[in-house]
Amino acid sequence: MTQAPLLLTMGDAVGIGPEIVWRAFVQGQADACVVVGDASVLRRAAQLLHPHGLPLALIDDPADAADLPPGCLPVLQPPGLPAGLDELPWGQVDARCGAAAAACITEAVALVRRGQGAGLVTAPIHKEALAAAGVGYPGHTEMLQALSVENGDPAQPVRMMLANDELRVVLVTIHLALRRAIDAVTFDAVLQTLRIAHRSVPAWAGGPPRIAVAGLNPHAGEGGLFGDEEQTIIAPAIEAARREGIDAQGPFPPDTVFMRARRRPGHAEPFDLVVAMTHDHGLIPVKYLGVEQGVNVTLGLPFVRTSPDHGTAFDIAGRGVADAASLVAAIRSARQMVVAATAAQRTVAPGSDAS
Amino acid sequence: MTQAPLLLTMGDAVGIGPEIVWRAFVQGQADACVVVGDASVLRRAAQLLHPHGLPLALIDDPADAADLPPGCLPVLQPPGLPAGLDELPWGQVDARCGAAAAACITEAVALVRRGQGAGLVTAPIHKEALAAAGVGYPGHTEMLQALSVENGDPAQPVRMMLANDELRVVLVTIHLALRRAIDAVTFDAVLQTLRIAHRSVPAWAGGPPRIAVAGLNPHAGEGGLFGDEEQTIIAPAIEAARREGIDAQGPFPPDTVFMRARRRPGHAEPFDLVVAMTHDHGLIPVKYLGVEQGVNVTLGLPFVRTSPDHGTAFDIAGRGVADAASLVAAIRSARQMVVAATAAQRTVAPGSDAS
Repeated sequence: MTQAPLLLTMGDAVGIGPEIVWRAFVQGQADACVVVGDASVLRRAAQLLHPHGLPLALIDDPADAADLPPGCLPVLQPPGLPAGLDELPWGQVDARCGAAAAACITEAVALVRRGQGAGLVTAPIHKEALAAAGVGYPGHTEMLQALSVENGDPAQPVRMMLANDELRVVLVTIHLALRRAIDAVTFDAVLQTLRIAHRSVPAWAGGPPRIAVAGLNPHAGEGGLFGDEEQTIIAPAIEAARREGIDAQGPFPPDTVFMRARRRPGHAEPFDLVVAMTHDHGLIPVKYLGVEQGVNVTLGLPFVRTSPDHGTAFDIAGRGVADAASLVAAIRSARQMVVAATAAQRTVAPGSDAS
Repeated sequence: MTQAPLLLTMGDAVGIGPEIVWRAFVQGQADACVVVGDASVLRRAAQLLHPHGLPLALIDDPADAADLPPGCLPVLQPPGLPAGLDELPWGQVDARCGAAAAACITEAVALVRRGQGAGLVTAPIHKEALAAAGVGYPGHTEMLQALSVENGDPAQPVRMMLANDELRVVLVTIHLALRRAIDAVTFDAVLQTLRIAHRSVPAWAGGPPRIAVAGLNPHAGEGGLFGDEEQTIIAPAIEAARREGIDAQGPFPPDTVFMRARRRPGHAEPFDLVVAMTHDHGLIPVKYLGVEQGVNVTLGLPFVRTSPDHGTAFDIAGRGVADAASLVAAIRSARQMVVAATAAQRTVAPGSDAS
């Protein structure tokens, strides 16, 4: 059986999403992908790359993409999208764009959950447009969490992973004031992060990941001299995780653990990923060498989901200058994770596939 | 008039200090430097690099170094150092080593303050050895601060700068638990940091430095959504600094400001240095590419002082394997700062030098 295609949601219709989708496609980096989006929006975006536009084909089933001629972008348009999206000015918050973006995500999740998509790569959406449309989720992550549960079940915990060619970082806390983030670094939050990372990352690490845990305080507290969260919270959570068979080590001083975990040629790095306590401890090193190659991965969902590590870039949308590098990296990462997850499933249940 | 030499303090006698001093010297990277240290300790360390040792000459005045033959290390030994330092086991805390290290620092500061040294490069000392010797300062910085004031004056505020070829970072807070560091990010502390950086760094930046100020919270608080320290403390301090003629900008999101400030070939970076609120926001990016090239600079002292960005490395001391790269970078940085400071003085007072 052929692998189902990856699904690319177009993101906000007046952001850079539609044009970077095209750019990735014409670069040959979006093969075996189906775009879930609005055809008129994608036609307008195609003209940013080529004066006469570029060919696309509307399909009803992702599997139909395999029958299209090369160079023709397969587009699956969810029913009921607002009309006239292709006439809205670029780079301005609009409720219709928020509604359309949400409809594409909803459709894509439904397809993935039915096995018609192998995983999800999401182009950037705009939080204000989403709010203006009355969508009850502040962003992708919360929406995907909600769409992933059966009726009535509580949402499963997820964690954000940022990755580039050198480094993978999973965050215990994200969008909180630093004071509140410190309070949110609890035994449960750290242990849960370790469990999610352990469960989700074998797809990339080629086996159970070797996890380095960064401390919270300078020098990881220097034995309690500069803070005791390492002793009272982080070390016990690491211990508990190790008792569950998770290969977690630390806590290590934040200022050197990322350097130690860097993957580079000719260097046998001791860790597959780093768990960081705060947004900026984790994101500073991932972004330091440039944001272009960064990929955002949501761990803990029942399917693969990646996204570029940037926003809608309203300031440059519609000018045809947006760089697709991060989207390309997100597609590549999603593909690797799907392949590895499929291989892992085959290993776990060798008979189920041979029948 | 010839420039006075740089003074290199030997650091802890049983750490890697003495051997990296030799290594820098034999690499030709410590020319026009005088070592302030114990001759017997340095003779023992020389044997780690060469079975027959290496030549050194005891001098009484740093100016005498100019008369020595090439390849002969000039050593100025302060009076009253403990005897038998060269018989102590490598890598073990010893009060005599703490006392000797402190005596060398004291002597070197006195020489620099009398104009007999151009600046100070300090090899690593061990805090426990210092404490065991009854030295009343926890480390170099506090000791140098105290030795720099006239009798009875309060110590001048200093700040730590970490620098490598790509990045210069000045820290508002250093060795504090993260919770306490947040409390220590005050209007006065930020403004003082900006003043010190502005005053001290022209030596490197070739003019008043363009300072980027990192925020404290994710996304620099996202307009107050993730914390308000940017609005209530950091932005007002930047405003006050700008009114004093300091070129400070921000606060910027911590996760991208270091990447933006990276100096690299063919890239016109917009800033000369970054002011970071916490130890790890600043040190994670400086160390990310490797600690070998990092230099620690104390800003705010009445003289130039740099040091390598590592400790005594007791685990490898005495084996002759220690890398001198960071010490070499510290010497190079100190030399650049001295040259630039001298040039700046000449510019400020053109008549004073021509007479």
